[in-house]
Amino acid sequence: MKATIVTIGDEILIGQILDTNSRYISQALNRIGVVVAERTSIGDSAEQITQTLTRALESTDIVIITGGLGPTKDDITKHTLARYFGSELVYNAEVGEFVRTLLERRGIAFNDLNRGQAMVPKCCTVLHNAHGTAPGMWFEQDDKVVVSLPGVPFEMEHLIDDSVIPMLKARFELKAIVHRTMITSGIAESLLAERIAAWEDALPDVLHLAYLPAPNVVRLRLSAYEVEQSEAEALIDSQFEALRQIIPEAVVGFEGATVEQAVHNWMVANRCTLSVAESCTGGNIASKFTAMAGASAYFNAGVVSYSNEAKCDILGVNGEDIARYGAVSETVALQMAQGARRAGRSDYAIATTGIAGPTGGSAEKPVGTVWIAIATPTKCFAVLKNCGTDRRQIIDRATAYAIKLLYDNL
Amino acid sequence: MKATIVTIGDEILIGQILDTNSRYISQALNRIGVVVAERTSIGDSAEQITQTLTRALESTDIVIITGGLGPTKDDITKHTLARYFGSELVYNAEVGEFVRTLLERRGIAFNDLNRGQAMVPKCCTVLHNAHGTAPGMWFEQDDKVVVSLPGVPFEMEHLIDDSVIPMLKARFELKAIVHRTMITSGIAESLLAERIAAWEDALPDVLHLAYLPAPNVVRLRLSAYEVEQSEAEALIDSQFEALRQIIPEAVVGFEGATVEQAVHNWMVANRCTLSVAESCTGGNIASKFTAMAGASAYFNAGVVSYSNEAKCDILGVNGEDIARYGAVSETVALQMAQGARRAGRSDYAIATTGIAGPTGGSAEKPVGTVWIAIATPTKCFAVLKNCGTDRRQIIDRATAYAIKLLYDNL
Repeated sequence: MKATIVTIGDEILIGQILDTNSRYISQALNRIGVVVAERTSIGDSAEQITQTLTRALESTDIVIITGGLGPTKDDITKHTLARYFGSELVYNAEVGEFVRTLLERRGIAFNDLNRGQAMVPKCCTVLHNAHGTAPGMWFEQDDKVVVSLPGVPFEMEHLIDDSVIPMLKARFELKAIVHRTMITSGIAESLLAERIAAWEDALPDVLHLAYLPAPNVVRLRLSAYEVEQSEAEALIDSQFEALRQIIPEAVVGFEGATVEQAVHNWMVANRCTLSVAESCTGGNIASKFTAMAGASAYFNAGVVSYSNEAKCDILGVNGEDIARYGAVSETVALQMAQGARRAGRSDYAIATTGIAGPTGGSAEKPVGTVWIAIATPTKCFAVLKNCGTDRRQIIDRATAYAIKLLYDNL
Repeated sequence: MKATIVTIGDEILIGQILDTNSRYISQALNRIGVVVAERTSIGDSAEQITQTLTRALESTDIVIITGGLGPTKDDITKHTLARYFGSELVYNAEVGEFVRTLLERRGIAFNDLNRGQAMVPKCCTVLHNAHGTAPGMWFEQDDKVVVSLPGVPFEMEHLIDDSVIPMLKARFELKAIVHRTMITSGIAESLLAERIAAWEDALPDVLHLAYLPAPNVVRLRLSAYEVEQSEAEALIDSQFEALRQIIPEAVVGFEGATVEQAVHNWMVANRCTLSVAESCTGGNIASKFTAMAGASAYFNAGVVSYSNEAKCDILGVNGEDIARYGAVSETVALQMAQGARRAGRSDYAIATTGIAGPTGGSAEKPVGTVWIAIATPTKCFAVLKNCGTDRRQIIDRATAYAIKLLYDNL
C-alpha cells in the first residue's frame, strides 16, 4: 500500500518554517506498513491542491494532507476538497459545540470564523480534534483514502495516532515495513563500502542497503518493504551479525543510538555521576543529557560559567590563571573540569571553554578554538579542537566532540 | 521565475531524517526573487527521479536537486541525470585531484569509489565543492536550469551560497520577493481576524496576507512576489503601520523576533546581567541565550542543579526546606533564583524546578508541574505552571514560559 504526503502552506515554500509534519507522518505510516512514495509541499492555492491530489491518487492509494484548515481567509484546503469531491459544506453541531467549549475555557468568544471551522464537506467522516478548533476529515473514493489534517504539529500528531493510524489499519490489509540501522564509527564511507562490498553484493533482493554518512559516523540501514515482519527481522538480524564480524571494531550500536545515550546507559549501569562546566557550549551539553528520561539518576550539576567571575566563584578557577593564560586555555579548561567534578560532587566531569564567535577571535585563538577537558576519578586532561567558523556549528561540534571524548574515557 | 526543489533519499521518505535542505534552499531562492512553486521528496529510484524532473521542468524554470551523490551503490542521482540529458560520464581530473587531496589530509586512501565521484556528465558545468567529495552539477536545457547538489547540509549550503545563487542571478533577470512578518501576542487568531477584517479586505492585490498561529502568538505575514523591491517594502511598511494602529497592544515585533532575543536586546541596551538556575529545564534556558551572538555581554552564569546537593552547594538552597517542601516547590524555586542571582553576580535571574517525567510524578505534583521563579533587583516571585505531559514538551514549554515571565518583568 503506497501513500503520498502533501503539506500545504506558503510558509513552507518560502522557508519560514521547517516541515516537521511530513517526518512524523512518514514514521507513523512506515510503522504500520504503508510505503511513503512521495512527499510534496505546495502553496495555499486551490489549483495546486487539486492538481497535486489528482496526481497523488493516480500513483498511490492513500493521501495524507496537512495544513490550510485555520479560520482565516488564507486557509482554503477545506473548500478545495469539498469542490474536489463534489460535496457541499454542512454545519457539524458536534464540532461546533466542542469548539465553543474549547474557546470558552480559554475565555475567548465563539464567533463566525469559529462557526466556519465547524462546516465540513457532507461526504467526509469527521475526525475529532481534541486539541484544536479544526477537525480532521477522512474521504473515500474508488477504494482510495484522502485524509485532511490541521497543520499545527501537536493537533496533527494526536489525530494521526488516535484516528488515522487505527482507521488505516482497519481499512486496509497491510504488510510490514522493517528498517534497522547499524551505527558505525571510525571508517570513512568509501573505505567502508570497499570493505563490505562482498557482503553487500550477496544481500538478498528483499533487503535494501543505504549508507547515511555524518561527521565521524556512517549509519548503515537495511530496509524491507511490505514483508512478513518477523521473517524480515530475522533476516536483517542475521545479515547484521555477519556484517559485525567483518567490521567488529567499527560497530557503535543500532538505530538512533547517540553517544550521549551511550554515556547515559553507562552512567546508570555503573551507578556513576556526571557534572559539566560549560563556557562556549552554553548549556547545550547539559541539555543533551537532561533531555533523556532518567538523567536525574546520574546528572548532578551543570554550570554555565560564561563570566570569569562565575568560573572563579562557582568552579574555583584561579583568577590569576585566567589573567595569565586567558579564559580559553588548557589551564582554565582543566580547572573548570576539576571544579565541576568537585562542585557537582560527581565521578566524572566535562568542561568546555572556547570562542563561539562571531567576535572575540584573535590570530592566536581564532573563532572556533575550543578547549575541552575531561575529569575522571583517575585523571584530568584537555584537548584543543577547532570547531568551525559559525556560532551554531561551533556549539554543536564542541558539544558532540566533548561528549565523545568523555565516552572514550569511561 | 519559478523553481521546484527536489530532495532525494529514502531516509527522508521513511522519516529517518528531517529535510532541512529544502528550507535552506527555499530561503536562498526567495532572497533573490525566485518563487518556489513546489518542494518534493522522492526515493532513490531512477524512475521517480526522471518522472519528477520531467514534471518539474514542465511547470517551472529552475530545478534544484539534492542528494544521491555519494560514493556508494545506493547513490544513483548522477547516473540518472546523465541518462536524462543524454550525456556520458567523463572523468574530471580537477575534481579527482581535489578529492584525493581532501582525503589524504584526513589520512584516507583514494580508492575506486572516490574516483567514481570525479566522474561527471560531459554536458554539465561542474560546481566546485570545497567541503566534500561530491561536486555540484549545473545543467541547461531549453532555457531552463537543473542543478544537482550533494545532500550533506553543510556542503549543499556552501554550494548554494558560493555558486548556485550567484550563477542564477547572472543567468536570469530576477525581480524581488518581499516577505515581512509582524509578531502579535495576546489575541486569539479568530478574534484577531475579526478585528482586522476591514484592513485585510482593503489590502492591495499585490500583497498576500498569511496567519501563522503558535502558542500565545499569531504571526501575520505580508508577501509580495516578483515585484520592485523598494516599492513593495514601502507598501508593506505603510500597511503594517496602519495595522499597528488597529491592534497597538498586541504587536510584539517583526520577523523572527523571539522573546529571548527581546530579553537579549534589553539586557545589552540596559547593561544589565542575567543568570539562570535550572532543574527540570536542564540547561535549555541557558542554551537559548548563549546561542545568540553577544550573549557574553550580559549572560553571567547558568547552573543546572539537578541534584539536591548542587542546589544547596552551588545555589545556597536550604537543605531542610528541600526535605520539608520538596525540590519542586515555591520555596526552593525562590531560593534557586536568589542563589543564581548571587552566585552569578547578576541583576536578574530565572529559576526552574519541576517534574519533566516520565517518572517522578505524584497525585499532588503530577508530571509537568513546574515552579518558575524570577529574581530582579527589586523583587523575587514564583509562578506554578503545568507544562504538559511529554518530557520534551515540558522542557520546551517551561523554557518558553520562564523567559516570557522574565521579559514581562524587565
